[in-house]
Amino acid sequence: MPLDLASAEAGLSEELRCGLDRVARVFDEHLRSDLECVEGLVVHVARYRGKMLRPSLTLLSGLASGRAAITREHETLAAVVEMIHMATLVHDDVLDEAETRRRGRTVNALSGNETAVILGDYLISSAFHLCSTLGSPAVSERIGRVTTTLCAGELLQLSNRGNDALDERTYFQIIERKTASLIALASELGARASDASDAEQRALHDFGLDVGAAFQIQDDLLDLLGDEGVVGKSVRKDQEKGKLTLPLIRHLERMNRDGRSEEAREAFAAARDPERHATLVSRLREDGSIDSALRTARELTERARERLGALPASPARDLLEAMAGAAVERRF
Amino acid sequence: MPLDLASAEAGLSEELRCGLDRVARVFDEHLRSDLECVEGLVVHVARYRGKMLRPSLTLLSGLASGRAAITREHETLAAVVEMIHMATLVHDDVLDEAETRRRGRTVNALSGNETAVILGDYLISSAFHLCSTLGSPAVSERIGRVTTTLCAGELLQLSNRGNDALDERTYFQIIERKTASLIALASELGARASDASDAEQRALHDFGLDVGAAFQIQDDLLDLLGDEGVVGKSVRKDQEKGKLTLPLIRHLERMNRDGRSEEAREAFAAARDPERHATLVSRLREDGSIDSALRTARELTERARERLGALPASPARDLLEAMAGAAVERRF
Repeated sequence: MPLDLASAEAGLSEELRCGLDRVARVFDEHLRSDLECVEGLVVHVARYRGKMLRPSLTLLSGLASGRAAITREHETLAAVVEMIHMATLVHDDVLDEAETRRRGRTVNALSGNETAVILGDYLISSAFHLCSTLGSPAVSERIGRVTTTLCAGELLQLSNRGNDALDERTYFQIIERKTASLIALASELGARASDASDAEQRALHDFGLDVGAAFQIQDDLLDLLGDEGVVGKSVRKDQEKGKLTLPLIRHLERMNRDGRSEEAREAFAAARDPERHATLVSRLREDGSIDSALRTARELTERARERLGALPASPARDLLEAMAGAAVERRF
Repeated sequence: MPLDLASAEAGLSEELRCGLDRVARVFDEHLRSDLECVEGLVVHVARYRGKMLRPSLTLLSGLASGRAAITREHETLAAVVEMIHMATLVHDDVLDEAETRRRGRTVNALSGNETAVILGDYLISSAFHLCSTLGSPAVSERIGRVTTTLCAGELLQLSNRGNDALDERTYFQIIERKTASLIALASELGARASDASDAEQRALHDFGLDVGAAFQIQDDLLDLLGDEGVVGKSVRKDQEKGKLTLPLIRHLERMNRDGRSEEAREAFAAARDPERHATLVSRLREDGSIDSALRTARELTERARERLGALPASPARDLLEAMAGAAVERRF
């Protein structure tokens, strides 16, 4: 089920589809274990595979930057990045005490936090192991560096839980590290595996960085505004966990110090009270904070699209452009 | 503070001491972050560095299998293995809800489970990243494979929580994967970095496997019999978490089916009741289960020592021999 957008969906070449199927196979085969208890968990996690945003970026970046076809190397890199992403989902669900993921139960809800913690470790280790089979220390170095950055971003977010004075600069630091860095790497590695020029690799890295930030802003908006039935995962988790996101940060910025503290507390407390939450959201709509966050996400995707100018025109580049838009226009 | 044993301590050459100091420096420097919240956690984790068993094995294996001196490569490998070990400690403490580690508070007790989960991830990622700087895909492959094995061992243990019918075969499968595999790798990599022959690498790997299993049996005995003040970390965690270990498995094997279930339940329930626990331990002493477990650990270290016969005689080999004994004879 690739990223949802009618036009992207329609234009998605057979080649990308087949490539993503092979990525899924590499992913599943590499996680196989002789232990029954591990097999059961791995099969469950395979269900979380959803948008395949990161693998799609790797394969399309590979095609857009010179290679005529998707190679085994592109597929392996795509599987590595998706495996790291999957590990972060499993651990994020522990952190968020989330119960639903992709319309199924989370590992923590099903098998307990402890199993979810170790399963996440199993996925991270497997990702690095799979990466090492490519025989490229430079690629392992990039993956190791970015995954470390990603964890640092999560730690920065955790250290700001309940911080009603979280500013926009720190918010962007957090989302760039915890989300955008891996999406940027997914694009960059696709180009690298196609022996693209440094300029093209950089352009695709920066493209991924912008798409990733936009994607996270939209994710935060869905957590704030979405319905669990549509989004397919637990919502209002950010507020419940004391995490301010862009619309709330902009809403609070408009208030004086005292009002700000009170409103932030109200936002955190309203997470499990639909009525209070609806009132909060209407205040955010009224002062334009939601529109403003959405506008920022769209500006980021616009900039992402411009960065693709460094690549020759191609159907793959068109699809990357469409995906940048889909990152924001999605409803789940 | 290297592994505690008077004779080993005394014989520990200046070279090993300096090597371990450099390993600690590589470790600390690689974990540095521009984020204050990460720095604070990393400094705390550095306090957990205790026996330095694994780094010592890497450096000594390197010296015992041909190299006249400890190289930067040995030190980096030692830091990588220790970092993975540290990550497992941080996550284990979350799983065990442990509050004390190396006489200090655990990360989960101090900063919450969520921070401990992500800090563990940060350590694993940093370990792989550091490893990649060595530029050897074969070494990255070994580290990735063993870390994955280790996680599978933890999952196997988790899936057997509360299982009063856990058999010895499964117990050894668990400890070989979750503990011995990394200790074996620590020794093997030291030999590999000295360009040792395949036979020597294998001998040191198998040496580590036996030492590791013995070490874990002793760890389990300390959890059962030790005093938190002496051991330096939370005790009775195995029982509390429904984990059967070797002395209990052998004790239960002597009983009929009904008695076994009842005694296992009593063992799990007695964890937080010193009086009931003391009575349980006296039953284990009486039927020889504790002695029998200790004997097995000693047999393993004996076999480990014999494996060193594949190496030429040297002071480093003598020290490895002494360390094998210390793994079992330690009191913390």
